[in-house]
Amino acid sequence: MTLAGTRLDVAAIEDLAVGSAVLGTGGGGDPYIGKLIAAEAVNRHGAVEIIAPHELDDDDLVIVVSMSGAPTVMTEKIPNGGELQRVFDLATEYAGRAPRAVISFEIGGINSLFPVAMAAMAGIPLVDADGMGRAFPEFQITAFNAGGVTFGPRFITDEKGNVLRIDGIDATWLERINRRALVAMGGSVVSSIGLTGADVKRASIHGSLSLAISIGRALRRGRHEQSSWFERLQGVCEVYRLFDGKVTSVERQITGGWVRGHAILTGLGDASDRQTRLDFQNEHLIARAGIGGRFEQVLATTPDLLAVLDTETGTPITTEGLHYGQRATVVGMPCQAIWRTERGLELAGPRYFGWDIEYVPIETRIAAGAAISPATG
Amino acid sequence: MTLAGTRLDVAAIEDLAVGSAVLGTGGGGDPYIGKLIAAEAVNRHGAVEIIAPHELDDDDLVIVVSMSGAPTVMTEKIPNGGELQRVFDLATEYAGRAPRAVISFEIGGINSLFPVAMAAMAGIPLVDADGMGRAFPEFQITAFNAGGVTFGPRFITDEKGNVLRIDGIDATWLERINRRALVAMGGSVVSSIGLTGADVKRASIHGSLSLAISIGRALRRGRHEQSSWFERLQGVCEVYRLFDGKVTSVERQITGGWVRGHAILTGLGDASDRQTRLDFQNEHLIARAGIGGRFEQVLATTPDLLAVLDTETGTPITTEGLHYGQRATVVGMPCQAIWRTERGLELAGPRYFGWDIEYVPIETRIAAGAAISPATG
Repeated sequence: MTLAGTRLDVAAIEDLAVGSAVLGTGGGGDPYIGKLIAAEAVNRHGAVEIIAPHELDDDDLVIVVSMSGAPTVMTEKIPNGGELQRVFDLATEYAGRAPRAVISFEIGGINSLFPVAMAAMAGIPLVDADGMGRAFPEFQITAFNAGGVTFGPRFITDEKGNVLRIDGIDATWLERINRRALVAMGGSVVSSIGLTGADVKRASIHGSLSLAISIGRALRRGRHEQSSWFERLQGVCEVYRLFDGKVTSVERQITGGWVRGHAILTGLGDASDRQTRLDFQNEHLIARAGIGGRFEQVLATTPDLLAVLDTETGTPITTEGLHYGQRATVVGMPCQAIWRTERGLELAGPRYFGWDIEYVPIETRIAAGAAISPATG
Repeated sequence: MTLAGTRLDVAAIEDLAVGSAVLGTGGGGDPYIGKLIAAEAVNRHGAVEIIAPHELDDDDLVIVVSMSGAPTVMTEKIPNGGELQRVFDLATEYAGRAPRAVISFEIGGINSLFPVAMAAMAGIPLVDADGMGRAFPEFQITAFNAGGVTFGPRFITDEKGNVLRIDGIDATWLERINRRALVAMGGSVVSSIGLTGADVKRASIHGSLSLAISIGRALRRGRHEQSSWFERLQGVCEVYRLFDGKVTSVERQITGGWVRGHAILTGLGDASDRQTRLDFQNEHLIARAGIGGRFEQVLATTPDLLAVLDTETGTPITTEGLHYGQRATVVGMPCQAIWRTERGLELAGPRYFGWDIEYVPIETRIAAGAAISPATG
């Protein structure tokens, strides 16, 4: 399903927020806040036109707006709209021409909603695409970077009014400097960077906005029609049910501009001797199953997607939302093809995040018998 | 003595390096490296004209160039000149007019030498003034800030070619963001910021370049003429001899973009039961004397100046140069008047650096009997 040619209204924002929470793989910031900001902007300025990447001209200016920092901080330090406008204006001024559209950096979490607000405020379209096809915790882990896009300056601001312009020699340096600076600036910042239409057509993940809205819609229908949310989800994307259980442990700490930690889910009833452990750096990076505190069976790893949803309702749960006693289901989804290339795995594979584990596509692990608990949803 | 109207040649650079090491109060970076870079620039481009602040017009552009980071790192990560030129050009481009002169941010350490190199490279004068009258470890601790100067953007670069522009809401935010960013950028960076002639005339420390050169000259003469370096020093500035001894302990670590630590000197001969402890954050902040590891007598504190010199030769020793067994003399000097105002003490007094000690001018402490060991130099 593609939404290009339609308009993104407040109802679609609801679905986008839910779908983004799934594609956010636990991170990307709680979309609830982004939803409020996007809805407010759409109510004031009107619904946002969605365009397909191929509608862009090569030299069109397409502006990315995003928030970065630890999601736990982001939810307490809500941008007031002034930050979005400030970095949007700086990217526009730098490019010296009117922006044609706005695009999301990542379709996961809060960063799929801010671009909606920005597009509404600026009265320009939103591109049905993003830079990740999910959320990732670092700036250089984008399809733009994997695809060899040359980045111009990145503009950064905070709620106090401090402004940074970073001309990094590459995406990794843009990330490093931004990450340190945002810690100084209170733990989260709003950023912009300008891309060309050619960059977006060639190197973005096409159709991801439509996908996120489809996922949100499927989960909503599942909830409203008392049908299985998991079956509804299977109707719109390739998804695997990895574990059902109860959250029995969550540890997280904010360090270096990220939230890092892990959660453990324990099986119910006859399966109470089985556990699954999720480790995250903003986003879930690896799911492993085991018995007695030994998690020896890898269920799935980055760059494939891992998400946790309420077993009963199918409501996605971010890492900040995880708490003891929740009944939750862990699902996995194959990542976009770009992440399975050599360059993609170099940027986003398990080894990049410090796990001495070979990347094996989730479908292969499933076929080889990665533990799947019986569906109970 | 004023050097305004004269030219700063390679011989004067030698004296400036030594004088800056004294006014650097242990920090500011080892001037040896700055000396090499300044001498190279002067040899290539010619001696640098020195002008007095009053020679500036109110709307003249005066560019500050400086290096920031932990001195221990700076000495291993020497800028190649390209960094100076890059940030100089950015400040010039931002102002949109040709710079009239260069000025030092701090007259202590390496940052009194880089401006010499920059002035030579650009073929413009160097102002006989600076922003501190010594060295301090943080950007907002300047007479410019104490004097209410409004700062424009600060430009920052590293040896790799990353460039940052920080538009901070005030000097404290410029410092915070820069300090975090420089950690990402390898531990030290080169920066620039544009001031107006009016700022410099009103809010800088006048004559400090001349003072630094005078101090260096006095120490050189003391060494060459076998006279007492301390008496020579007394001939050019108000200075107190606080302790003579042997360095018996040095602890330092690089943390948060600074080098922090302390050194202990132990008396010699009959005074071997007496010790003095110096605590530093890049620069020496407090000197305390005591017996048996209890340092209960405050000899002097920031913002007054503390320096350590080789007891025999009068060669200044930076905190990185301190090591076990050196025979060394601790001297103290009154700070510039601006630092003794309410605003100055708020920025640079002992409480700012976390010491629960009332600031008492060094002269008052001396008059009240702050322990002074007998002169042995």
